[in-house]
Amino acid sequence: MLQEAPKTRGIKLEVSFSPMLYNIYENPNAIVVVIDVLRATSAICTAFEHGAKELIPVATVEEAEEYKKKGYLVGAERNGEIVEGFDFGNSPYSYMGEKIKNNTIVLTTTNGTKAIKMAENAYQVVVGSFINISALSAWLAKQGRDVLFLCSGWKDRYNLEDSLFAGALVDKLSTEFEIETTLADSALSAKYLYQVAKNDPYKFLRNSSHRKRLAKLNLKEDIKYCLTPDQSSVIPVLKNGTLVKLVEIESTVV
Amino acid sequence: MLQEAPKTRGIKLEVSFSPMLYNIYENPNAIVVVIDVLRATSAICTAFEHGAKELIPVATVEEAEEYKKKGYLVGAERNGEIVEGFDFGNSPYSYMGEKIKNNTIVLTTTNGTKAIKMAENAYQVVVGSFINISALSAWLAKQGRDVLFLCSGWKDRYNLEDSLFAGALVDKLSTEFEIETTLADSALSAKYLYQVAKNDPYKFLRNSSHRKRLAKLNLKEDIKYCLTPDQSSVIPVLKNGTLVKLVEIESTVV
Repeated sequence: MLQEAPKTRGIKLEVSFSPMLYNIYENPNAIVVVIDVLRATSAICTAFEHGAKELIPVATVEEAEEYKKKGYLVGAERNGEIVEGFDFGNSPYSYMGEKIKNNTIVLTTTNGTKAIKMAENAYQVVVGSFINISALSAWLAKQGRDVLFLCSGWKDRYNLEDSLFAGALVDKLSTEFEIETTLADSALSAKYLYQVAKNDPYKFLRNSSHRKRLAKLNLKEDIKYCLTPDQSSVIPVLKNGTLVKLVEIESTVV
Repeated sequence: MLQEAPKTRGIKLEVSFSPMLYNIYENPNAIVVVIDVLRATSAICTAFEHGAKELIPVATVEEAEEYKKKGYLVGAERNGEIVEGFDFGNSPYSYMGEKIKNNTIVLTTTNGTKAIKMAENAYQVVVGSFINISALSAWLAKQGRDVLFLCSGWKDRYNLEDSLFAGALVDKLSTEFEIETTLADSALSAKYLYQVAKNDPYKFLRNSSHRKRLAKLNLKEDIKYCLTPDQSSVIPVLKNGTLVKLVEIESTVV
């Protein structure tokens, strides 16, 4: 309960632990990293690694149905399972192979795509997961901009895996790179969490609520995959409401 | 992103890291512990330890002014400082001595009293701080009810000291007492944070944003006081919109 915020030095790192808090943290100068480790943002990174041309995130199943009628390849997940009538849910293993390559994919999920839509008007929106963590942190370190980590959570509740990933990125940015950072309390907290978990994130998440939900659905392989770092160097970025590979934007600028 | 929540066994412990998330976590069966370690809930516990008869939390400075006109002893804090024209702010040291004893106090603060008002319709609302942590955890352990820890935060942002205290209570309830608990992800996270911090919470909070705000106001003594456990065995509880000593309610039942 006190005074104006301390003066920010260098880039400011902050974490919104729930989409519900996004408006509180909204910062016109910040790059927003959307996080939904289990499994939407891991699946999105996987799709781009496997050659997807673009991915259109939509908020509702109804919008997804409209795209499906038009002949698009459409993923739809609610409560962890594929919505009937769609091509796939949000298992990363569905976003591999020939059907993905050079294709446009439409996706709606319980938490992740909602968070992406929410941040649409930010300075820049990128998608993060352990799949692309090193590429993403190296890129963020070069931007010299504040970063807001937006955890998708579970139906607006705090969740452990998204916070853990935010903490992993804060840790990398504040220790591996020679940039001055100011860590908001949320970023400090996520970093401490990561430091407790980093030797074995899989074991660490054993007691998490979502891990238990997924275990019931026999999705252990999905969880292991989603916690395996650096399977891709692609950074998905939002451009006019559609996710594309960051490199494509950069190459058009050159 | 998955299925229904895992089955709850024993009492469920959950943490709302911001008043903004309270509606998400609202649970008609839960006891709500309102937390504003630096400094509102520490000041409230201090007032009761020093013999206050009751404390009326109000949301706005305007309401506080109305009480002031009627001759009440009124505390009003905004941004860490006393609002002009009031008897005191939220320094715990103001809530000691003869003026407090047997008196009714009215209080409005930036974050803490707002959180108390927000939880008004919960099954039961109690006030927590390091000042009364052992008494509070022993009492909670006896109730056999879900507990929702409501962190006041800093203007709806996550803050380190309230989360730390929530974690200290989760740790006590889940390890010291022989009750079965289910920890939501938020409670697990707070508990890990406490385990990192417990050897020296004062040092741990050195980098927190609010600690820095308070340091600027030369409030080191306040901070040390607020982090000193077990200075009181009184549990303030909300009854018809007014905080009273829990023991008074219990003794009227007997």
